[in-house]
Amino acid sequence: MLKLVRKKTRKVGAPPGTLVHIGEKKAERTKISIMDYDHADLHEKESGNVEDCIPLRDAPTVTWINVDGLHETETLRKLGEAYRLHPLVLEDILDTNQRPKTEDFEEYIYIVFKMLSFSEETNEVEAEQVSLVVGRNFVISFQEREGDVFDTVRDRIRNMKGKIRKMGANYLAYALLDKVVDQYFIVLEKLEDRIESLEEELISDPTPSTLRSIHMLKREMILLHKFVWPLREVVDTLQEGESPLIDKQTIRYFKDVYDHIIQVIDSIDTFRDMLTGVLDAYLSTTSNRMNEAMKVLTIIATIFIPLSFIAGIYGMNFRYMPELESRWGYFVVLFIMLAIGGLMVYYFKRKKWM
Amino acid sequence: MLKLVRKKTRKVGAPPGTLVHIGEKKAERTKISIMDYDHADLHEKESGNVEDCIPLRDAPTVTWINVDGLHETETLRKLGEAYRLHPLVLEDILDTNQRPKTEDFEEYIYIVFKMLSFSEETNEVEAEQVSLVVGRNFVISFQEREGDVFDTVRDRIRNMKGKIRKMGANYLAYALLDKVVDQYFIVLEKLEDRIESLEEELISDPTPSTLRSIHMLKREMILLHKFVWPLREVVDTLQEGESPLIDKQTIRYFKDVYDHIIQVIDSIDTFRDMLTGVLDAYLSTTSNRMNEAMKVLTIIATIFIPLSFIAGIYGMNFRYMPELESRWGYFVVLFIMLAIGGLMVYYFKRKKWM
Amino acid sequence: MLKLVRKKTRKVGAPPGTLVHIGEKKAERTKISIMDYDHADLHEKESGNVEDCIPLRDAPTVTWINVDGLHETETLRKLGEAYRLHPLVLEDILDTNQRPKTEDFEEYIYIVFKMLSFSEETNEVEAEQVSLVVGRNFVISFQEREGDVFDTVRDRIRNMKGKIRKMGANYLAYALLDKVVDQYFIVLEKLEDRIESLEEELISDPTPSTLRSIHMLKREMILLHKFVWPLREVVDTLQEGESPLIDKQTIRYFKDVYDHIIQVIDSIDTFRDMLTGVLDAYLSTTSNRMNEAMKVLTIIATIFIPLSFIAGIYGMNFRYMPELESRWGYFVVLFIMLAIGGLMVYYFKRKKWM
Amino acid sequence: MLKLVRKKTRKVGAPPGTLVHIGEKKAERTKISIMDYDHADLHEKESGNVEDCIPLRDAPTVTWINVDGLHETETLRKLGEAYRLHPLVLEDILDTNQRPKTEDFEEYIYIVFKMLSFSEETNEVEAEQVSLVVGRNFVISFQEREGDVFDTVRDRIRNMKGKIRKMGANYLAYALLDKVVDQYFIVLEKLEDRIESLEEELISDPTPSTLRSIHMLKREMILLHKFVWPLREVVDTLQEGESPLIDKQTIRYFKDVYDHIIQVIDSIDTFRDMLTGVLDAYLSTTSNRMNEAMKVLTIIATIFIPLSFIAGIYGMNFRYMPELESRWGYFVVLFIMLAIGGLMVYYFKRKKWM
Amino acid sequence: MLKLVRKKTRKVGAPPGTLVHIGEKKAERTKISIMDYDHADLHEKESGNVEDCIPLRDAPTVTWINVDGLHETETLRKLGEAYRLHPLVLEDILDTNQRPKTEDFEEYIYIVFKMLSFSEETNEVEAEQVSLVVGRNFVISFQEREGDVFDTVRDRIRNMKGKIRKMGANYLAYALLDKVVDQYFIVLEKLEDRIESLEEELISDPTPSTLRSIHMLKREMILLHKFVWPLREVVDTLQEGESPLIDKQTIRYFKDVYDHIIQVIDSIDTFRDMLTGVLDAYLSTTSNRMNEAMKVLTIIATIFIPLSFIAGIYGMNFRYMPELESRWGYFVVLFIMLAIGGLMVYYFKRKKWM
Repeated sequence: MLKLVRKKTRKVGAPPGTLVHIGEKKAERTKISIMDYDHADLHEKESGNVEDCIPLRDAPTVTWINVDGLHETETLRKLGEAYRLHPLVLEDILDTNQRPKTEDFEEYIYIVFKMLSFSEETNEVEAEQVSLVVGRNFVISFQEREGDVFDTVRDRIRNMKGKIRKMGANYLAYALLDKVVDQYFIVLEKLEDRIESLEEELISDPTPSTLRSIHMLKREMILLHKFVWPLREVVDTLQEGESPLIDKQTIRYFKDVYDHIIQVIDSIDTFRDMLTGVLDAYLSTTSNRMNEAMKVLTIIATIFIPLSFIAGIYGMNFRYMPELESRWGYFVVLFIMLAIGGLMVYYFKRKKWM
Repeated sequence: MLKLVRKKTRKVGAPPGTLVHIGEKKAERTKISIMDYDHADLHEKESGNVEDCIPLRDAPTVTWINVDGLHETETLRKLGEAYRLHPLVLEDILDTNQRPKTEDFEEYIYIVFKMLSFSEETNEVEAEQVSLVVGRNFVISFQEREGDVFDTVRDRIRNMKGKIRKMGANYLAYALLDKVVDQYFIVLEKLEDRIESLEEELISDPTPSTLRSIHMLKREMILLHKFVWPLREVVDTLQEGESPLIDKQTIRYFKDVYDHIIQVIDSIDTFRDMLTGVLDAYLSTTSNRMNEAMKVLTIIATIFIPLSFIAGIYGMNFRYMPELESRWGYFVVLFIMLAIGGLMVYYFKRKKWM
Repeated sequence: MLKLVRKKTRKVGAPPGTLVHIGEKKAERTKISIMDYDHADLHEKESGNVEDCIPLRDAPTVTWINVDGLHETETLRKLGEAYRLHPLVLEDILDTNQRPKTEDFEEYIYIVFKMLSFSEETNEVEAEQVSLVVGRNFVISFQEREGDVFDTVRDRIRNMKGKIRKMGANYLAYALLDKVVDQYFIVLEKLEDRIESLEEELISDPTPSTLRSIHMLKREMILLHKFVWPLREVVDTLQEGESPLIDKQTIRYFKDVYDHIIQVIDSIDTFRDMLTGVLDAYLSTTSNRMNEAMKVLTIIATIFIPLSFIAGIYGMNFRYMPELESRWGYFVVLFIMLAIGGLMVYYFKRKKWM
Repeated sequence: MLKLVRKKTRKVGAPPGTLVHIGEKKAERTKISIMDYDHADLHEKESGNVEDCIPLRDAPTVTWINVDGLHETETLRKLGEAYRLHPLVLEDILDTNQRPKTEDFEEYIYIVFKMLSFSEETNEVEAEQVSLVVGRNFVISFQEREGDVFDTVRDRIRNMKGKIRKMGANYLAYALLDKVVDQYFIVLEKLEDRIESLEEELISDPTPSTLRSIHMLKREMILLHKFVWPLREVVDTLQEGESPLIDKQTIRYFKDVYDHIIQVIDSIDTFRDMLTGVLDAYLSTTSNRMNEAMKVLTIIATIFIPLSFIAGIYGMNFRYMPELESRWGYFVVLFIMLAIGGLMVYYFKRKKWM
Repeated sequence: MLKLVRKKTRKVGAPPGTLVHIGEKKAERTKISIMDYDHADLHEKESGNVEDCIPLRDAPTVTWINVDGLHETETLRKLGEAYRLHPLVLEDILDTNQRPKTEDFEEYIYIVFKMLSFSEETNEVEAEQVSLVVGRNFVISFQEREGDVFDTVRDRIRNMKGKIRKMGANYLAYALLDKVVDQYFIVLEKLEDRIESLEEELISDPTPSTLRSIHMLKREMILLHKFVWPLREVVDTLQEGESPLIDKQTIRYFKDVYDHIIQVIDSIDTFRDMLTGVLDAYLSTTSNRMNEAMKVLTIIATIFIPLSFIAGIYGMNFRYMPELESRWGYFVVLFIMLAIGGLMVYYFKRKKWM
């Protein structure tokens, strides 16, 4: 289940800048993979170590360092030192509770956001924190665990597809961000399918578990909104192009990502409105049905309970009950019952209950 | 049914600028029709091809190229090349998931929005994406399928009605946009009719299907709002007149369209409020009726169940029941029953239930 | 009933600037009345024609042309030509669907808003569109039908009451607008009375028709809000005094009108909140009452149904039922019934249901 | 009960600037009391008349003229003339419908707001309009009736407590405003007490009157919000210090009042949220209880109604009913009843209803 | 329980600047502890008095004066005088009703906010007011009672951990604020745990007390929001770095705190949405269950009540009832009963109630 607040308790009390990993340990080992390229050449190193990264810092080629797994704080500290990251940035990278944000440290831009994926097993959305440090010639990406989302970007670099090899580090940052937002759309599609199937279920055959699923989905929407909404601001800041690290021709691409994020937020809000609508529809239908059942019950009970009472009276075993002896008593009582029943029916018809 | 997210999956993984048509294939063939005119002359070509369009790009006459059907990506690529469109613009034209927006590329303005129509068959609103590329001397319009909405504009050009022949490409863009917004009003009228008829139905004879229709309409309003709301911003940008492609005397016309869009949004929101109001009214009426039924049931049951119990007691067949032998037993019991019933009635009257 | 969208269909397809009257025809004939005055003189013409108006356009005196009835488009076209009105202005005057707005055309200001009145017959609010064209020396007012709202302004002009004769055309425009806003307060008073009487009705003796009236009122509030809300912006624009047509000393008066409009909007919103509150109160009271009834029903049924069942058992006519023959059977059974009843009462007392 | 709109009808039709008192007549006579002081001297006049005020206008000492009662329009007109007040200001002072606002007339500032008090008799909040006219050396305060709220300010002036005697007229205005806002806190405390006692009542022993009181309180919150909310803007304008009539050192004090008003608004909104919460809690508790009652009723009825039916069958008096003659008929039937009852109980246990 | 308004009554009437402690007396004695340090030296005094503080005011070392307990107004007055605090600041420090705010007095900045803690005993959040006065070389902190939250800061000063000893007074202020915000996260974790456990309880076994707890939590969220929301503005003002008292390098740290506060506010709002969601889920589940119960009851009652009535008829003891004498009467009646029952079942099946 998506969670908003992860245990931070062990951190409390430490001075700011202390490196503590806050979140679940999702990867076995911290894995560093390096891609170093320009228009002509490409050097790749699958599982490198921090020392491999240091000389690339000031090389004119574009360097992409991808770090999977955040719990080996010592490794990260070294990397941070080599690339001169502010202690608060390192702290934020390790704290997987971050709200999406971007900060401009002149030498580099720090961007943090959430990657979403839909787990087919649990039918739930999963979130993972991704941090990007974008410098003049390098991008460092931090993920909580190994994933295959960035593989298509890797392929494009390897195969020289698109213009990625011709552009700088900020275009690479765009490509990674774009990938993550594409991922959002896949999650949205799954959610829309799920909403529709639940909707149908609710109309045809509502069970308590349908209701619970809908409420779980609605809660998921609340959390997704919280995850995606601040990203809008992040990309807005990037597209304004105030940082010299973002080239003018890349801005148009960030604008495109911005439009996509707006669409994602719109969709999440709409889904939420829809789910509310579904529940309202369910409640008013239920209310309508109860009303129907109530009317039937009231009509039947109101007609037959008094009649049964009359029958009950003449079922009493008193010795002296003059009516019982009368020749026409039975028929008179039957007639009275019929009349009462008829009056009741007339009353209900007039009240428009029948 | 209106849908918010259309399958984008096949696109994911491709580099930005890859041309993939996202959406249903609504037209058999991509059809290009060309109108080229100035104050004096008019040249028309019903089903042209891309090659016909190229020489017109730099002609001083106003050229209107209308493209119906978006799935022949190769044709569109060629057209885009000829008119020097940015790859992201072509990508957006093909992706029918676009949120209405406008982008200024200096040489041309790109505008994308939704055309709405009301299908009498399904009683539902249908949406189609329309893209406009507005240059100095040309307008290219892209529709998902062939339609007759722009026919009146064509007639005005042919018959020299209004000032359309005397004005530039930006006035043509206004005329097309104005047409689409007029279309919105027709849809609104249909919806208002439908709301009113559902309202009456709900008051006179509510069936579960009435309720479902109302909820479907409410959901439609949510989606319509999402479709129209961003258009406000689009036209606001246009009317501010910052682009040199929009003539000063056309701005007043865009202002007019802007007012209309505000009215459309207002109406959609009001319809939504009304539908909520209708459902609230329905729920409170139902609740009132259930209360009535409940009261009747409670009164009847509370009066007669105890009396029936008394009758039940004297209907038992015990050999030794002294009351049964008594001369006045029957009448005493009848009197007691009457008294209990009377007391009950008095109690209910005091409680204001009767 | 107030309506938001009026049939515009017949208009669709015509080029912009085509004069078509959209709305009901509320007046028999278009009637033009003219008042031409300055500090010293006053010329009045009750039912003039367009030709009477033309020479007054450039006279130094203040000219007030009031037009009742909008369906004679030819008359209006002539008037518009004489006073050099933009075709879109004439179109807007005729389209009674306008959202209140103001537009500055340098030579004149165009203002359009709604006049409200409360019909005692139908107990409903009625809305009528009023357009003002305010020039340097003239005001043209357009109403959908003849009315007496502006009569007090006419009297003030005739009797030289207040400063109206000493001020320019913009003060006359203020006086007319002020009159219309005063009219709003009268409507608000009626509505407050109605809300209060409905409230009392709902508490003392709620009928389905009370509920319906409340919901109708709530819907009326939604529409009134839509009618009045944009007027705030209109008068705000006027009071900012950017147009040279508004004298500095008149601005203070427009500020006063602005305050009144804010008050009207505030009141409408408050009324809406109140009506929501009334309905909530009603629903929770109903729910409370049903709960009460339910409890009574449950208690009675739960106590007597099992007892009746016991009585039913000993009312069976089996030949061999040993208890029936017993000397004390009847009394034992009576005691058991008493015990069961007592236990039930105890149980309900403990559950706090009694 | 607080009212939003007071009858204005008699005013409608009069030209702007006409002095008509709108509101209830709350005081017998209009009473004018004058305090004239500087650091050294103090002159007081308890029930003065307009003539006493005139010479003080241009004296260097600080003059505080307090007017209780607004219905003697002639007196007010004279005072207004003496102090050169704009006709619209006098009109606003008399119209007790004002929304709190401030207007800068260069020579003086006009401030109007609501004074609140809690009536122990009716358990309701009462509102009264207070107007302040703040000049260089004078403050004129207008109240609807005589009150003792300003007495502590009078005492501070008399006893030279605090810095009031050392400061100018604008500090006096602050002191009066501060007094009124302090008054708000007293009302808030009363309301919080009332909310808490109603809350407890609703949990322990909800009566229809508890519900009605809560709804009345909620409505009161709506009105209080409307009364206090605009005051925030009023004091914000004053603390910005743009008027030369507000000394720089007094601004800090107006900031303090501003903070208090924010707190009052916050509290009112919180109270409203709380009351909504209380009602929601009540509704869900009621719903829970009805559910409980419903379950008990359903279980009892579902078990015993079929059993009673069986007993009813064997209570019929047909001559030929073979079972009745059988030796074990009675016991077999008893056993069948037991079995049916047991099955029902099992069914309900499985459905988790028991 | 968190309270919004604390009794201020005893204050009303006093001139501004009068020192009155508003709030509960939470500490036995006012305790002053002093830390005076620079990079090299540290002087500590655990329970000092005001006189100890005075000479430190203008020393170049950083001085931190912590005051626990606010009821000894005389001590505070002296301290305020020594450090030249504005009377309104002292008043605000003593009034524990403050809304979080910051005010820049040039020589020092005044910051007031709420410290939150979660009491394990009462399962409730507790709030305490903390005031900071931040000068060039000193920080004075005021707490309502002794607490251990600032102890880790003390340790960092003593042990020279982090950079606290190398930075100025404004970094100390940041460290204290950061501590308080860390505290918020601990409270949030507790609340999230509690929400989750209540959620489970509500699904598995809802009792009225579960409902009440959820409503209490929701109300707590309302109050927490009010406490934390204004703090966002406070820290925003500080991070803008307009005061010369905030060093440029500290601003980055205040930015960090700002991000944390945004996260806290986000979480509180999300919790509130979640609680609303939980209650909605509960209500719709309850409604679903009642519907189920209602259906069972209606089916059983509707089938058996008419059948019982028939049995009742033939249980009457009339002497002349021809059917009773008939040979097949009993079996015919049984068959009729079966037929009626079957028809009812068929009817309910068709209505989809079974």
